[in-house]
Amino acid sequence: MAKLKWGMIGGGEGSQIGPAHRLGAQADGLFEFAAGALDHRPEEGRAYAQRLGVPADRAYGDWQEMLAGEKDRPDRIDLVTIATPNATHFEIAKAYLEAGFNVLCEKPMTMTVEEGEEIVRVARASGKICAVNYCYSAYPMVRQARAMVRAGEIGKVRLVVTNFSHGHHGDATDADNPRVRWRYDPAMAGVSGQFADCGIHALHMASFICDDEVATLSADMASTIPSRQLEDDAMVNFRMEGGTVGRLWTSSVAIGRQHGFDIQVFGETGGLRWASEHPNQLFYTPVGGRTQIIEKGEGGLHEDAMRLSRVAIAHPEGFPLAVANIYCDLADAIRGEPRDGLPNAADGVRSIAAVHAAVASARAEGAWQDARPPMFR
Amino acid sequence: MAKLKWGMIGGGEGSQIGPAHRLGAQADGLFEFAAGALDHRPEEGRAYAQRLGVPADRAYGDWQEMLAGEKDRPDRIDLVTIATPNATHFEIAKAYLEAGFNVLCEKPMTMTVEEGEEIVRVARASGKICAVNYCYSAYPMVRQARAMVRAGEIGKVRLVVTNFSHGHHGDATDADNPRVRWRYDPAMAGVSGQFADCGIHALHMASFICDDEVATLSADMASTIPSRQLEDDAMVNFRMEGGTVGRLWTSSVAIGRQHGFDIQVFGETGGLRWASEHPNQLFYTPVGGRTQIIEKGEGGLHEDAMRLSRVAIAHPEGFPLAVANIYCDLADAIRGEPRDGLPNAADGVRSIAAVHAAVASARAEGAWQDARPPMFR
Amino acid sequence: MAKLKWGMIGGGEGSQIGPAHRLGAQADGLFEFAAGALDHRPEEGRAYAQRLGVPADRAYGDWQEMLAGEKDRPDRIDLVTIATPNATHFEIAKAYLEAGFNVLCEKPMTMTVEEGEEIVRVARASGKICAVNYCYSAYPMVRQARAMVRAGEIGKVRLVVTNFSHGHHGDATDADNPRVRWRYDPAMAGVSGQFADCGIHALHMASFICDDEVATLSADMASTIPSRQLEDDAMVNFRMEGGTVGRLWTSSVAIGRQHGFDIQVFGETGGLRWASEHPNQLFYTPVGGRTQIIEKGEGGLHEDAMRLSRVAIAHPEGFPLAVANIYCDLADAIRGEPRDGLPNAADGVRSIAAVHAAVASARAEGAWQDARPPMFR
Amino acid sequence: MAKLKWGMIGGGEGSQIGPAHRLGAQADGLFEFAAGALDHRPEEGRAYAQRLGVPADRAYGDWQEMLAGEKDRPDRIDLVTIATPNATHFEIAKAYLEAGFNVLCEKPMTMTVEEGEEIVRVARASGKICAVNYCYSAYPMVRQARAMVRAGEIGKVRLVVTNFSHGHHGDATDADNPRVRWRYDPAMAGVSGQFADCGIHALHMASFICDDEVATLSADMASTIPSRQLEDDAMVNFRMEGGTVGRLWTSSVAIGRQHGFDIQVFGETGGLRWASEHPNQLFYTPVGGRTQIIEKGEGGLHEDAMRLSRVAIAHPEGFPLAVANIYCDLADAIRGEPRDGLPNAADGVRSIAAVHAAVASARAEGAWQDARPPMFR
Repeated sequence: MAKLKWGMIGGGEGSQIGPAHRLGAQADGLFEFAAGALDHRPEEGRAYAQRLGVPADRAYGDWQEMLAGEKDRPDRIDLVTIATPNATHFEIAKAYLEAGFNVLCEKPMTMTVEEGEEIVRVARASGKICAVNYCYSAYPMVRQARAMVRAGEIGKVRLVVTNFSHGHHGDATDADNPRVRWRYDPAMAGVSGQFADCGIHALHMASFICDDEVATLSADMASTIPSRQLEDDAMVNFRMEGGTVGRLWTSSVAIGRQHGFDIQVFGETGGLRWASEHPNQLFYTPVGGRTQIIEKGEGGLHEDAMRLSRVAIAHPEGFPLAVANIYCDLADAIRGEPRDGLPNAADGVRSIAAVHAAVASARAEGAWQDARPPMFR
Repeated sequence: MAKLKWGMIGGGEGSQIGPAHRLGAQADGLFEFAAGALDHRPEEGRAYAQRLGVPADRAYGDWQEMLAGEKDRPDRIDLVTIATPNATHFEIAKAYLEAGFNVLCEKPMTMTVEEGEEIVRVARASGKICAVNYCYSAYPMVRQARAMVRAGEIGKVRLVVTNFSHGHHGDATDADNPRVRWRYDPAMAGVSGQFADCGIHALHMASFICDDEVATLSADMASTIPSRQLEDDAMVNFRMEGGTVGRLWTSSVAIGRQHGFDIQVFGETGGLRWASEHPNQLFYTPVGGRTQIIEKGEGGLHEDAMRLSRVAIAHPEGFPLAVANIYCDLADAIRGEPRDGLPNAADGVRSIAAVHAAVASARAEGAWQDARPPMFR
Repeated sequence: MAKLKWGMIGGGEGSQIGPAHRLGAQADGLFEFAAGALDHRPEEGRAYAQRLGVPADRAYGDWQEMLAGEKDRPDRIDLVTIATPNATHFEIAKAYLEAGFNVLCEKPMTMTVEEGEEIVRVARASGKICAVNYCYSAYPMVRQARAMVRAGEIGKVRLVVTNFSHGHHGDATDADNPRVRWRYDPAMAGVSGQFADCGIHALHMASFICDDEVATLSADMASTIPSRQLEDDAMVNFRMEGGTVGRLWTSSVAIGRQHGFDIQVFGETGGLRWASEHPNQLFYTPVGGRTQIIEKGEGGLHEDAMRLSRVAIAHPEGFPLAVANIYCDLADAIRGEPRDGLPNAADGVRSIAAVHAAVASARAEGAWQDARPPMFR
Repeated sequence: MAKLKWGMIGGGEGSQIGPAHRLGAQADGLFEFAAGALDHRPEEGRAYAQRLGVPADRAYGDWQEMLAGEKDRPDRIDLVTIATPNATHFEIAKAYLEAGFNVLCEKPMTMTVEEGEEIVRVARASGKICAVNYCYSAYPMVRQARAMVRAGEIGKVRLVVTNFSHGHHGDATDADNPRVRWRYDPAMAGVSGQFADCGIHALHMASFICDDEVATLSADMASTIPSRQLEDDAMVNFRMEGGTVGRLWTSSVAIGRQHGFDIQVFGETGGLRWASEHPNQLFYTPVGGRTQIIEKGEGGLHEDAMRLSRVAIAHPEGFPLAVANIYCDLADAIRGEPRDGLPNAADGVRSIAAVHAAVASARAEGAWQDARPPMFR
């Protein structure tokens, strides 16, 4: 089976996200790195792409040049990954979708709800894939959790509790570090800091595992480092459309929590617990029974969990291979076998709507808000 | 040193709390079980007390009889523990304090804020001890956490996050079990279910470790088992008087969380983490540094942690000895060497005020409330 | 039910073991501290006993005086605990047994196999209880493990692996500290250092849970701190009478292992895992299935585990209450309801024989030895 | 930088090791899968290689054909991975080395010590790389441990204790499964079962982290499932050339240990602990101090640990990327920047010698043996 052709925009030298995508796309031999516009400085971007093996004629100076160069090639790229600064996602994703490319967009998909709805419409009209990189949802044991919920193994879900709280922005003496500061500057980050950065991963995860959507929410936000204009800590209570109660805490000043993304789902007949720091175990407790440790790779897992696991039980697989799983699902979808769990533009705009609703709630002292984009109300 | 004389009201045969108090009072040889009115059925109570070694003439039929019998004895009890149904705490505590007895009252101290304030006033007037059994605060590593905060070892506290969430009331088919049902019945439990039962332990712990008081709060409550009139799940956001942001989740339907009481405290220069399921370890992370595991019994602990530890490092001590530590502090206080951390009537009434404020907030869709009793505003 | 009368020899002021025994004997209200000869300095011992509440006429200067004072009293002690230096255990235990007292002896029961066999014979002849304080075997979850093995829940046991390895003697600069040094000095400790101190707890545990006896062994010992004459690290391979393969590692230089006592038992149809640092959980894996976490206090435990647990599931109980469980079993035995698991003089002499066999094996470069005392061959 | 060209022998469809090598070689974009002889059935192997993207003219029917086809190409492969049945490693590795190819050989490198020494000589004579896939040594935190030992951060190493014990062959009813049975059949597996399969990973790890070599050993082996001719459980005590005491337990009947590879290293001034089930943490305890958790990706790690980590702190990386790290080091070595830690033919033959010495010792009731190949004595 020939490799698919893949291009990337952004993810230049020194970025964190670039290597994660390159590894994700190439690890399983499914994609060939065929084109790239990797840097906002055209020459640096062209040179870096070539050092990474991209042919010279497909090492582009910017995304417009890449679009022009690729769109009429007979061997044009099958998928483009957008890993540029957040404020540029909308324009680029729209342009590539309209030109008939499949897209994987980094989160947040857009800055505003209106833009997000526009992407949904454009993607629908194009018939192309617009995926969003909620990569944590592609861990095998997260897929197992979702499959268990859908199979009714914990009964109707009453309650979901999720945290994405780390401490890596907890040092006030480092708050002016440009890598940290922009996240709390409305001019660059938009209306929200930590919730838009990490919280939406957790919110998507709650919807993903519960197989339901967030309907309403109430938020409490705080800038615990006073110089920050945007929140570095937030608590969001929510209700899902099916009635599930939700609780989400996100923080960047939780010193000692190195990663801190976890989720607990409680249903009528059982509970589930998963944490990204030890992603190969899922803890399951049937009501009135003992906690069982479900291991990635054990016999009898649900299909989705089995399929996305590469090595045998108790050989851990980590974050880069969760990203690779997104690419596995993309390859299947491009080849006409779409997988159910791939996060899409609708997921993307729901996140943006939740961010705006949370900010509105926090400003209104916790008043409950509709969390949904108008198109999904 | 002669043993102190101790009496108990409630805690009859088959109760859980009775054995915990008896072990707590007697484990370290500080108290002699001298008097008791253990059961609402007088004869059963007298017989049981005698089987437990209480002399026949001090095995009473009810608390009034015991008060009458003890108050004029030259060898009257030095301390009475009140472990009766919640609604009776006020009347009994008041009567014993007024008669000049030292009291240890189970939580919640009273049902209403007014009653709670009255107990504070009576205790002050009597000059006697009125302690409340927030026994988790007496674990050595909780005392260590408090001492570290007070010594400035994590800087000004920005954020405290605490959970007391278990799943033992998660079985809807068991919801009519009388041991479970009363907690969600306003006629017996008052205005709040899970928050009043477990949440106030966590709220006290937050105040205790942060050495600050809760000022305002906003709550979201849910009865995830629909037949319940009172909440089985609650999220409370709060602010402390010193500005610390607080987050508290409590649940009784969190299936798989066997105990589920934990606390995380994040300051300007470090973070702390403790969980009641493994109470002998305290996790400490200095900002920018590695997480360190502080062990009960290690060298160099703060005085309070050292003093309340009986056996060497890595010999675990558990819940019954945390209760015993409350009795150690009581013995010291009775003998004129009061310890700083012993939870008192002011702590008791603060909890009740917070419960009422949380219920008011939840009914007002999360509107923020003053969490303090009027006397402490 | 009247309290039983209890006396202690040794465990003077400042000792670690004294408070553990006093708490163990008194925590559950089963024993009254009625007599004591607590110190090798008669006056200090008498004064300390009285400070602890022992009546003046039963606060003795030494064990001989106590024996003389107690043996003809109508209210003589029901049980004596021997917590003196190891070399004196034999003489004292023998004298008290011959005088018709029940005995709880600290480990090691004696210094030589001959002495140990003599104690077994004397105990049999007297009809009295001679228990040895292998207190770890009284943790509820250890009793659960034993009961599961006996009920066939993991099938025939193939393999048992146990470690008791800590790092508290790992600091060479502290090796001359008298509290540490004597353990490696043959004049005080006998033929073995770490194996005789901690290893025999693990060896007893293996026999206890597997319900079988050690038959043969091969040992490798090392003094990793060269100034030591006795081993600070040992590995012992063994075979049980029923054919089970055994492996036991013990060390006092394993820096970072704070306690380090754990055991794993592997049978034909399942495996079990327990560790003293988190003693309230037992991990059980049926062959081909998932690991389950068995919690102290959960429903459906074996009787022995249920009986020796005081507070509800997930309220941890620790080391001092494991000691208290030994006293619970002793109280039952004294009252004529002997419990099956109480460690006795036969267990005591088996340990001594294993120590001597291990030293002989290590000196013979690992040659296999019969591990049993002659009387049990 | 152009990709290096890579070929594989073995690892056909359905094998576990094939995908691990392909991912390892391709994940970081360093190698192009250029040639393969993947199956002992020529046509299946050719077809599978082509499906994986190998050009038709380099999809070979067997290793001899591949050797003939590659050796004179100007664009011949830069590296060949040998992942065939163990008994064929020697012949293939020798032939490719003699033809001037760089080789990565699966473990065990050879079946006999003589063969192993021959490979060492041939590799030396060829000037080519002969690496052996002790991939666990390439986890970032294992490299960190080695670097800490070499930097003297735990002082002279006194003791190393390592286990590689799982339970996946613990089901006697599955013992005739061909995937399991061959490992205990001398005709296919050679002189040793579990020790040759897993134990040598642990033995290599001990040498690797301690930066020392195993000198002598004593072994106890057992076939706990009686139908097995080779051991399914072994304990090996050893001494390193520098005097370090070693203890290694390996088992395939340890039901409930899902992976079970861990190592503890104890020096004069500190201890280290690592486990493959949670490979992103390294536990470090300075003597007399607290245990610290060192996280993959944290600031200030040793160079080797930093270099082999792809994503930020607390984003776990797992087993497939440890294999990829071996390929990273190989790429550097091929390009003339050899890395110090890459396991080589000398490591390979040392393992074989240790296997034979352990079997000899077990047969001689634990008599100590020289563990080294003659060429390294």
